[in-house]
Amino acid sequence: MRVAFLGPRGTYSEEAALQHASQASQLVPFGSIAAVIAAVGEGAADQAVVPIENSLEGAVTHTADLLIHGTDLLIRREIVLPIHHCLLVQTGFTLPLVRVVYSHPQALAQCRGYIAEHLPEAEPVASLSTAGAVKDMGSSTRPAAAITSRRAAEIFGARIFAHNIEDAANNKTRFVVLAPNDAEPTGRDKTSICLDFTEDAAGILHGALGELASRGINMLKIESRPDRRSLGRYIFLIDIEGHREDAIVEEALRGVRNRAALFRILGSYPQPDA
Amino acid sequence: MRVAFLGPRGTYSEEAALQHASQASQLVPFGSIAAVIAAVGEGAADQAVVPIENSLEGAVTHTADLLIHGTDLLIRREIVLPIHHCLLVQTGFTLPLVRVVYSHPQALAQCRGYIAEHLPEAEPVASLSTAGAVKDMGSSTRPAAAITSRRAAEIFGARIFAHNIEDAANNKTRFVVLAPNDAEPTGRDKTSICLDFTEDAAGILHGALGELASRGINMLKIESRPDRRSLGRYIFLIDIEGHREDAIVEEALRGVRNRAALFRILGSYPQPDA
Repeated sequence: MRVAFLGPRGTYSEEAALQHASQASQLVPFGSIAAVIAAVGEGAADQAVVPIENSLEGAVTHTADLLIHGTDLLIRREIVLPIHHCLLVQTGFTLPLVRVVYSHPQALAQCRGYIAEHLPEAEPVASLSTAGAVKDMGSSTRPAAAITSRRAAEIFGARIFAHNIEDAANNKTRFVVLAPNDAEPTGRDKTSICLDFTEDAAGILHGALGELASRGINMLKIESRPDRRSLGRYIFLIDIEGHREDAIVEEALRGVRNRAALFRILGSYPQPDA
Repeated sequence: MRVAFLGPRGTYSEEAALQHASQASQLVPFGSIAAVIAAVGEGAADQAVVPIENSLEGAVTHTADLLIHGTDLLIRREIVLPIHHCLLVQTGFTLPLVRVVYSHPQALAQCRGYIAEHLPEAEPVASLSTAGAVKDMGSSTRPAAAITSRRAAEIFGARIFAHNIEDAANNKTRFVVLAPNDAEPTGRDKTSICLDFTEDAAGILHGALGELASRGINMLKIESRPDRRSLGRYIFLIDIEGHREDAIVEEALRGVRNRAALFRILGSYPQPDA
């Protein structure tokens, strides 16, 4: 199986893809989320792994928009990846000597406290990705450090100076696996749907949630966003408990569908372990 | 009046602050969103301008978390800033000669199409901010370009080679102005609230939206997110039409308050012009 992911190699996206892939899988990097998704449509890959929430490596808001408008693929799995940053230091230098620290701007921001305490003389300099930071460190003319994933350190054969240097614990990124088909029911599933509205959002959503609440179906997540295609039009993205083939979910979704102009099931897939 | 904003100067955050400030205002840059908000609490500024949605310049998801947990400040205004990127080119070079183009990674991503077409030989290199890209261009040893805001070009006295080079039209960032008090009613207002839930989200939200829908109060936006303080606890962020002092809104919010464990009004403020 060929699994497309947001490259380059060594990013957290590749870590998520590795977690998804079997040993026989072939991982194929692409340069943008749109390209990752298109690869499956065009037959260049069988499945796609893309970040959908709180990622360091791209404009993740676009993933949901692509799911709604840009593809017929369905979500068949969700992968929640804990984000732990590592510190690399150029060979021969100790922390007080470091004058520049490279990483993706969001990773630099997430390690602000560590940098202030341990790298007081280092200037933060942006890299295109956490993987790119390792290369930038390598070609630096000043004594340099890099903040990156353990995976990237392994790929580049770099020695890890410190683990888990992020300021806040519990930093996670959610990825989804897209494919022509979603997953079979397992008994502990979730279903992602989207529906649109033009006005009276409280009324429409109240009615739609009534279809769920009256059947005891729990909602796991909700989000509204402007529909980028048509001004003044909005979309709800909702995750609920259950599989779209569960009788009670099927019945509730039929009720929701009747209340919305646009309604699309983005996929049913197992809930990740808590 | 002293207005704190997310620096450095020349960023889109400064543009938003400029749009908010009167001529007599003093704009004061801070290095993080948390520092911008703290500045008002500590008396170093009177108001704070922070990005809250789709920004290039920081982890905007944190703004909402800070609003809920980290401050007593209220939203008193909202500023929607169209994001238009400009291209700067080092003096003496034409586009085909450019070998490196600097910007914030999200700005580089937003101009991917333009770069592919007009700067085919240029390597995209990350800067910490769109304003920082101008400095990076200045110190580049290879023929360089920078993608930045018009404001940054003006500050650095750089000639703008091309305007509006972003691939997608309609790219906007939403900022909020925070202060000890929110705004007076104007007749065309919105109110931001947050409430939490631990389980039966569909049921609780269904009930809360019933309080709005039954009174004909429209919902403008909704979002759920994990409460970063306590595992398994979630928060809804909801924008509704009307001012919290409008009799019907006050009555509805009283009903919503009775249904949630945590309830906080984040502020009432004028709706921006459409």
